[in-house]
Amino acid sequence: MPADTRTLANAVRALSMDAVQAANSGHPGMPMGMADDATVLWTEYLKHDPADPAWPDRDRFVLSAGHGSMLIYSLLHLTGYERPTLEDIRGFRQLGSPCAGHPENFLLDGVEATTGPLGQGVAMAVGMAIAERHLNAEFGDDLVDHRTWVIAGDGCLMEGVNHEAAGLAGHLGLGRLNVIWDDNRITIDGGTDLSTSEDIEARYAAYGWHVTRCDGLDADDVRRAYDEALADPRPSLIACRTIIGYGAPNKQGTAATHGAALGEDEVAAARAELGWEHPAFEIPAGILESWRQAGRRSQGAHADWKARLAASNQGTEFSRRMAGALPESFSLSDYIQGLVDEPQKMATRKASELALGAINAQLLETIGGSADLTGSNNTKTKDQNPLTKDDYSGRYLYYGIREFGMAAAMNGMALHGGVIPYGGTFLIFSDYCRPAIRLSALQQARVIYVMTHDSIGLGEDGPTHQPIEQLMGLRAMPNLHVYRPADAVETAECWELALREAATPSVLALSRQNLGQLRHKATENLCAKGAYLLRDGGEGRRVVLLATGSEVALALDVADALDERGVGADVLSMPCWERFDAQPDDYRAELIPEDALIVSIEAGATLGWERYTGRAGLNIGLDRFGASAPAADLF
Amino acid sequence: MPADTRTLANAVRALSMDAVQAANSGHPGMPMGMADDATVLWTEYLKHDPADPAWPDRDRFVLSAGHGSMLIYSLLHLTGYERPTLEDIRGFRQLGSPCAGHPENFLLDGVEATTGPLGQGVAMAVGMAIAERHLNAEFGDDLVDHRTWVIAGDGCLMEGVNHEAAGLAGHLGLGRLNVIWDDNRITIDGGTDLSTSEDIEARYAAYGWHVTRCDGLDADDVRRAYDEALADPRPSLIACRTIIGYGAPNKQGTAATHGAALGEDEVAAARAELGWEHPAFEIPAGILESWRQAGRRSQGAHADWKARLAASNQGTEFSRRMAGALPESFSLSDYIQGLVDEPQKMATRKASELALGAINAQLLETIGGSADLTGSNNTKTKDQNPLTKDDYSGRYLYYGIREFGMAAAMNGMALHGGVIPYGGTFLIFSDYCRPAIRLSALQQARVIYVMTHDSIGLGEDGPTHQPIEQLMGLRAMPNLHVYRPADAVETAECWELALREAATPSVLALSRQNLGQLRHKATENLCAKGAYLLRDGGEGRRVVLLATGSEVALALDVADALDERGVGADVLSMPCWERFDAQPDDYRAELIPEDALIVSIEAGATLGWERYTGRAGLNIGLDRFGASAPAADLF
Repeated sequence: MPADTRTLANAVRALSMDAVQAANSGHPGMPMGMADDATVLWTEYLKHDPADPAWPDRDRFVLSAGHGSMLIYSLLHLTGYERPTLEDIRGFRQLGSPCAGHPENFLLDGVEATTGPLGQGVAMAVGMAIAERHLNAEFGDDLVDHRTWVIAGDGCLMEGVNHEAAGLAGHLGLGRLNVIWDDNRITIDGGTDLSTSEDIEARYAAYGWHVTRCDGLDADDVRRAYDEALADPRPSLIACRTIIGYGAPNKQGTAATHGAALGEDEVAAARAELGWEHPAFEIPAGILESWRQAGRRSQGAHADWKARLAASNQGTEFSRRMAGALPESFSLSDYIQGLVDEPQKMATRKASELALGAINAQLLETIGGSADLTGSNNTKTKDQNPLTKDDYSGRYLYYGIREFGMAAAMNGMALHGGVIPYGGTFLIFSDYCRPAIRLSALQQARVIYVMTHDSIGLGEDGPTHQPIEQLMGLRAMPNLHVYRPADAVETAECWELALREAATPSVLALSRQNLGQLRHKATENLCAKGAYLLRDGGEGRRVVLLATGSEVALALDVADALDERGVGADVLSMPCWERFDAQPDDYRAELIPEDALIVSIEAGATLGWERYTGRAGLNIGLDRFGASAPAADLF
Repeated sequence: MPADTRTLANAVRALSMDAVQAANSGHPGMPMGMADDATVLWTEYLKHDPADPAWPDRDRFVLSAGHGSMLIYSLLHLTGYERPTLEDIRGFRQLGSPCAGHPENFLLDGVEATTGPLGQGVAMAVGMAIAERHLNAEFGDDLVDHRTWVIAGDGCLMEGVNHEAAGLAGHLGLGRLNVIWDDNRITIDGGTDLSTSEDIEARYAAYGWHVTRCDGLDADDVRRAYDEALADPRPSLIACRTIIGYGAPNKQGTAATHGAALGEDEVAAARAELGWEHPAFEIPAGILESWRQAGRRSQGAHADWKARLAASNQGTEFSRRMAGALPESFSLSDYIQGLVDEPQKMATRKASELALGAINAQLLETIGGSADLTGSNNTKTKDQNPLTKDDYSGRYLYYGIREFGMAAAMNGMALHGGVIPYGGTFLIFSDYCRPAIRLSALQQARVIYVMTHDSIGLGEDGPTHQPIEQLMGLRAMPNLHVYRPADAVETAECWELALREAATPSVLALSRQNLGQLRHKATENLCAKGAYLLRDGGEGRRVVLLATGSEVALALDVADALDERGVGADVLSMPCWERFDAQPDDYRAELIPEDALIVSIEAGATLGWERYTGRAGLNIGLDRFGASAPAADLF
């Protein structure tokens, strides 16, 4: 006889409290409170195949309340994923175990997204649901027909990004998205009534969502609510009233269960309370088999799907897209040759638009967008139609004034796969996106940020809009490529590099103002090495000028002026530090020698340039806030 | 006969379109659409005295939709503030004029907050309204009895931070807060229906706000709505249906009026349409006099208030607080002497709590708080009661899981004056607060960020929670002091420095893990110079080790090990780079000489350390993401 839901759920509770107890660190409260809801979802609703976690048409599950990571580790193990093993779970939060404190998509298959920074899981799920509907519009129900499920906590729903994400989801009518809210009325500081009085259900209804409520500890009521969500064409918020730490008789319902081990005594008491008499980390065979059987539920659907894929004339293209491989024919050479043939003075944001013209025509997987700055970011090409509720096949998203929500949604789209998202805002508002940019980098997601108006060169909008420290702040982030091209040719080269990096997000910092074309040959992608010699100072070289973006032309002028005074000066264009730093020592030493005065020129914070100029070098930049005036006056 | 409201409002419209036209840059649409609403507010409702913009009991007005800056410049000029003059307005968006592209609180009296980064004006206003109610609870209606008014656009209400701020305001029942929403259904990209379908009024009602709606182009209906808001005890959202660019016959109601000059022809057509026959930048004497008369409306109330202040036995204390001066008696010397007498090993977050014990007892103007990490950030001292809807006199705020909202509210509190806000979260979540931290710095607001769990030393929570690039990203920001103390003594010193900087915000980066006490003398505040010699390598010094925070102890160990091998090594503790960089050359050269190997040790990004170590130095740090494991294993 298969085990009942509560028994299955108690396996989750036991694993969770035992693992946290063994680590003496972690969050048992959420997994114990949500065990029934998650068990119903994973054993009866979620379409997935533990034997093939990469099945493109699987449902996506995002644990937005990532601190409750033992919930997903338990679910993955119990339904039969290869990892985590019981050994992995025993090693929860220890070096070498894939069961990290918060779930990391790069450590475990089945973890669709790295979560923990609250609110972003919900917002990434919105991106996944967008990707699903978009690919469905292109490839049809036969190949793309799945749902996105989220478990979110009170924290997720207090974070501002949930507002942006939910507003976007309501607007786009993403009915395949279901957010299960762990309504346990507890946060770290105590009761939610310490800090909030809002009616979350009314708020979500205001976004155009379907909202339902259930007793999250009553499996039948949970099923009723899930069914209601499935039946409704709108995105659904399913409020599940639960008790945090359910089963721990003396601590449940209190903040004490949120972020600390229960303690040996309370773990023992919980075992008694739950009627779970098995030793730590032991799941009785019968219960495990019930779980495994549930894990095999979708194998038939998976096999049918494979057959449809094999029969589809779109199968090859679909598989290429989902694998994230660019078409072999993809090339910007012709476009770049055109620039070389007819040099043009233009803003790099405009150059980006032109490059996108060539890119979007070849890469049908791109989905562009902007946080309400389409005309300024130059992110929309003529062939792109809007992606709307009525036409998901569109390849351009009007994200609205939701920079953070846009960035997080792009993460979700990239993680879903099959699409390559890029989105624009002003570079200054990279600050609004920053938590999501960090998750792009950590998650190794191919998201391309088009950040225009990249210096005081934007002029009159003044210091609130003039980036100073943004470039350097982004360069300090691991696994992020920050590109600042100097002209139209470099812009195209940087775009190509960004597109070809499947596991590294990119920021393209682009000028508002027009820049002359500096490159008149294009035999190879010179930006690929991050920095290159643009002007050779010759035998008499005593100075090396380093510059990026709009300041490269300035560096060339300075070099000419020095030349007239008999001082030879090299000029390096350095569009991407991260790539340059990855070059062999001899290349770097050749470009930035010991026997010259090294001078950096960049219209932004100088901090960081000393990496190249050393203590004896010269740094020309801006270490205070800007001002409001025409760009020429400011420079 | 005094001019009617529409005529007064047309003066705003004319100045706005003329100034934008002269600059050929700016945003005429919002000021023209909202001119009637703003005119009713400024001539009939707003309590202020243009002759004394610093009157503490004035109403606060925040133009959250800061791009419509010509609206506030017009209002300030017309009601009789000394600046901006007509000359200033003619110089809109030009170097030297205080009429910057976006309103800057440090350029013009009457501009209460720097706005432009959308949503933050609303959130700062929430902070102002908190400060008002708190000071009212302490000083009574006689001295503190004013309102906070906001004009917000669709962008402000789409940004996530408005959700956090509105939720907090509803929870705290801030009835003195009125947000006037310019419901013009237009954003930069086009109609709001491109990107949003939400019912904003229902959403605000869900936060516990009073919501009303009016025809924003009908002064009587606007008055009706304002009166309704005043009568309701809850914070109010006043939805004003307007037409962007109202008066420009061919462009009104379209995105074309949002962010560009109307053009000479359309300006002329608007003059005809509005019946405004006066030349550019000319306000007829009668109309100006009506405006000026309205500007003098509150002079009687101001005089009465002054009399009450003079009569109050709390007057001196109130005035000191509003001036932002610390009590002359304020000192942490006794507390620090206690640490020196009985050295203790403790986390610097714990040391911060102890220092706050001494601070909060002496500075009754502090208001602490945390974004739901009170026990982890150690931000609450025993004598602090919660600030709640039922008791605004409390000095501790449970901000909820709203890092950005907290930071922006603290900006508003600091700008309001009379209080010194500090608030905590994990250092990693400084990313969530970053746009507001930047506004603290730009606005010269004394906000103190208590950022704990400041390195991989936090351990098991893993890479989503381990800061790597955050310290450096914050150091790159102008006018921000980033402190990373190494022990309890330095923590107290850094707290004192942060409190004494009235025009510079501070970040205190504090450890989760215990640190030994390194300082055993406390004759002067050694952190004041940003860096100091903690260990003298003596005559044979060949190495200088630079470190901050938890790594200073490590540097001392390394120095001892080098010593054993006959290599003398200095150790510098560098708790605050910004202060060190501001020291005279000779002090810096003495500490970081040319003739030694300079080595930096910090558990974070190395980028930036080359400022001190040069190209020949050594940088020990972490340039990739962390991992989940106990802290000792990670190090």
